[in-house]
Amino acid sequence: MTVKKSAQHRPRVVIVGGGFAGLSAARELSASPVDIVLIDKRNYHLFQPLLYQVATAGLSPAEIAAPIRAILSHQPNVTVLMSKVAGVNTVAREVLTDTGRVGYDHLVLATGARHAYFGRDDWAPYAPGLKKIEDATAIRRRVLVAFERAEASDDPIERQALLTFVVIGGGPTGVEMAGAIAELARTALAADFRRIEPGTARVMLVEAGTRVLATFPEQLSQKAKQSLEQLGVTVLTGKPVEVCDSEGVVIAGTRIRASTLIWAAGVAASPAAKWINAEKDRAGRAIVGPDLTVPGHPEIFAIGDTAMVRDADGKIVPGIAPAAKQQGVYAARVIAAKVAGRPMPPAFRYRHLGSMATIGRKSAVVDFGWMRLSGFLAWLLWGLAHVYFLIGFRSRVVVALNWIWAYVTFQRGARLITGGEGS
Amino acid sequence: MTVKKSAQHRPRVVIVGGGFAGLSAARELSASPVDIVLIDKRNYHLFQPLLYQVATAGLSPAEIAAPIRAILSHQPNVTVLMSKVAGVNTVAREVLTDTGRVGYDHLVLATGARHAYFGRDDWAPYAPGLKKIEDATAIRRRVLVAFERAEASDDPIERQALLTFVVIGGGPTGVEMAGAIAELARTALAADFRRIEPGTARVMLVEAGTRVLATFPEQLSQKAKQSLEQLGVTVLTGKPVEVCDSEGVVIAGTRIRASTLIWAAGVAASPAAKWINAEKDRAGRAIVGPDLTVPGHPEIFAIGDTAMVRDADGKIVPGIAPAAKQQGVYAARVIAAKVAGRPMPPAFRYRHLGSMATIGRKSAVVDFGWMRLSGFLAWLLWGLAHVYFLIGFRSRVVVALNWIWAYVTFQRGARLITGGEGS
Repeated sequence: MTVKKSAQHRPRVVIVGGGFAGLSAARELSASPVDIVLIDKRNYHLFQPLLYQVATAGLSPAEIAAPIRAILSHQPNVTVLMSKVAGVNTVAREVLTDTGRVGYDHLVLATGARHAYFGRDDWAPYAPGLKKIEDATAIRRRVLVAFERAEASDDPIERQALLTFVVIGGGPTGVEMAGAIAELARTALAADFRRIEPGTARVMLVEAGTRVLATFPEQLSQKAKQSLEQLGVTVLTGKPVEVCDSEGVVIAGTRIRASTLIWAAGVAASPAAKWINAEKDRAGRAIVGPDLTVPGHPEIFAIGDTAMVRDADGKIVPGIAPAAKQQGVYAARVIAAKVAGRPMPPAFRYRHLGSMATIGRKSAVVDFGWMRLSGFLAWLLWGLAHVYFLIGFRSRVVVALNWIWAYVTFQRGARLITGGEGS
Repeated sequence: MTVKKSAQHRPRVVIVGGGFAGLSAARELSASPVDIVLIDKRNYHLFQPLLYQVATAGLSPAEIAAPIRAILSHQPNVTVLMSKVAGVNTVAREVLTDTGRVGYDHLVLATGARHAYFGRDDWAPYAPGLKKIEDATAIRRRVLVAFERAEASDDPIERQALLTFVVIGGGPTGVEMAGAIAELARTALAADFRRIEPGTARVMLVEAGTRVLATFPEQLSQKAKQSLEQLGVTVLTGKPVEVCDSEGVVIAGTRIRASTLIWAAGVAASPAAKWINAEKDRAGRAIVGPDLTVPGHPEIFAIGDTAMVRDADGKIVPGIAPAAKQQGVYAARVIAAKVAGRPMPPAFRYRHLGSMATIGRKSAVVDFGWMRLSGFLAWLLWGLAHVYFLIGFRSRVVVALNWIWAYVTFQRGARLITGGEGS
C-alpha cells in the first residue's frame, strides 16, 4: 500500500508493531483527530507472558493471541496492515514495507525484541528461544517428541538423554519453563506411558549469575529456587554454559547429555534503531530521550523492548509488558498534545507495579515493593493478574477455564505434536 | 522399539493407526487377555469431521484432537508408540517401524486415506487438500493472508483475485468449507478492514457431477445448494476443473483468477495394502473379506478408509467416521473370539445411521433415512451430534462454548496466521 499525504489530510501516525507498546499507543489515540496506520508483520497481538504455557502444552496459541484488526475493529481512525517493514526514509518521512510505502507525520517504532546468544549464534539451532508462537510450538514439539522417542527406545543411554531437559537462563521465562516441564512430566504425562516413567525426567535450570530471578528481591529468589526443587528441578547457579551442541551442554566443564535445550538467557532489540540510524546500546536498542523520541527526530518515537528508556530518575526501564504499555500510552499523549497545540506532558515516568513469576501449579513469587508474597496465594494473584491483562473477554474466559480444568484434572490441554518434518 | 514375542506371552495385537477405526478396535479389546501395541506416526487422534473448522479459523487444532496415549491412559493392556511404519513382514509377522520391529499375532491396519488428484498431482501445490491438522492451518493461513494482502494492495485486479476463493469438490467437505469461508468473510471479518469490504469476496464451489452432496437424497442436495447461495456462494455443477495453477482455475473453458484454491474432490488410501501385498482397488484400498481380513491372511485386518469393505449385502461401505468405528469394533470382536476360542461373529454388517452436512451458522442438511431435515433444526442436530462424538469431556465443553460464542458474537475464535515462510 502506497499512501501519500496530501495538504488536506489529518496528521498521519504510523505505528510499527502490534505488541503491548504499539497497541497501547494506537488505543490511546482513539479520540485524537489523527489517522493511524498500524503495521505488523503478523496478524495477531501476542500475550507473551503466557507463551511458555504454549511451549509446555498448557494452552493453545489462539488462547493467548488475538487478531490485531479484531482488537481495533471498533476504532475507526486506525487501519491495520500486515506487512514487513524493510526500512524508514527519515527525509521523505516514509516507512518502506513489502506492500508499498507509507508516509507519516509521526512515527512510533514498537517492534520488540528477539532472542540473543551473546555472540554464540551457532548455539541457536540446538537451544531454541521463546519469543513467538512458532518458537513455542517448536519447543512443545521437541519436549513431547522426547517422551515419545524415549517410550519407543530400547537403549537406556539414549533414553536418559531423551528424558533430560536443560533450560538456560534463570530469569522469569526460564523459571516458568523449567517448572512447567517438570510439572508436565510428573502429572499430566505420568499415567500415559508404559515403558518409561515420565516422572524420572531430569529438568535442569542453569543460571550464570548467583541466583535465579536476579531482578527480584533475594528472599523471593530463594523461595523460587525451593519451589523449583520441590517440583524436582535441579537448579544450577553461578555456572555459565560453555558448549551447546547436538549432544547437550557442557556446564562448568561437565558434559550433560540432553536432547532438549531451551534458551531463555537473553534478548536483543529488533532492527528498528538501524532503520533510522539511531544511536544504539549494546543490545541494539535505540537510545531515546526523556519524551521517548529519538534525538534529532522529534517526530520519531521508539518504545518497548526495541528502545533503551531511562526513567525521569535516570533508571533504565525494564523490558516487561507493563512498562511497554505505559510507554505506548505516553507516546500517544505526546503526539496528541502536539497535534492539538497543547503543552507537552512532562518527562516519562515509569511506575513499577510489581514483578511476578510462577513455578508450577501451586506456587509463585510476587513482589509489589511494599508487599512480597510466595506460595499458593501468590500463585492465585499471578493467575488473576494474567487473566485480567489478557485482551478480550473471550480469551479471559477460555484461559481461566483451561487453568481450572488443568488444576482439577492435572491434564494439560494442548499436548499436540504438530508441524515438523514429514508432517 | 523391537519387541519379540516369547512362548509365554499373551497374544499380541498390533494396531497401526489411531484414527476412528484403530482407536475403536483398541478400546473394544480393553477386557480381552491380549497385549495391544497401537502405532501412529502422530501423537494425537484427530476428529476429522471438524477439520474444516480449523481451516476456516473457527476452532483451534487442540479442540478437535487429543493425544492418543491420554485417551488410552486408563487401559492397561495397550502401549502407544509414536512411530512411522515402513512396511510389514508377513512371514515373520513383524511390523517394521522407524523405531524398531514389532511382532504381532494379530495385525489391524487402520491407516486411513490421503487426498488424491486423479492423476493431476501437479495441481497439489496450488490446490491443497484437507486431511490433517497441518493442511488445515495451511489453508487457514492462505485464506486469512488473502484478505490481509487485499487490504494492503493498490491494484484492483490483484485485489479481485485475492478476494476470490474456489473450492473444488461438492461433497460434504467442500460444501462445509465453502459455506464457512463465505460466512467468515461476511460476518467475522466484516468490520475489521478499512480499504476492502470482505463481504464482496467471491466464493465458488465447483462440482464435476450433477449435484452437490451426491450421496444425499436429491431434495437435500437442492436445499444445500440454496443455503450456499443464500450465503453468497456461487455453486457450479456439471463442470469439471480443467486447469489448476498459480493464477487460479479454468472451468469449462473459462479462466477464473483466484489466489486461493482448495481441493476437496477425492481421496485415496494410505499405502497399507502395499505393505502386505494385498489386492487393491483403483483408489489403493485393500480388498477385504466379509470378516474384514485380507484374503490369505486371517491374522491381518484392514479397516476404515484404507480398506475397501463390502457389507454383508454386497454394498460398498462409505468412508465416513461411523463406518470406521463399526469396523474397528467388529475387528476387535473377531480377534477376541479367536483368542477365547469362541465361534466367529457373523459377517460384518454396516449400519448406516445417517448423513449430515452443515452450511454456515444456521443451516444444515440431515438424512436419517426415515427422516430428513434441513435448515436451522438440522443445524442444531448437527451441532449436538458432532459435540457428542468428540472424544473427551473437555473437548466437548470447549467446542460447545466456542460455537455458542461464535454464534452470539459472529466472531471466529481462531483467526491466527501462524507458520509459513519467514515466521
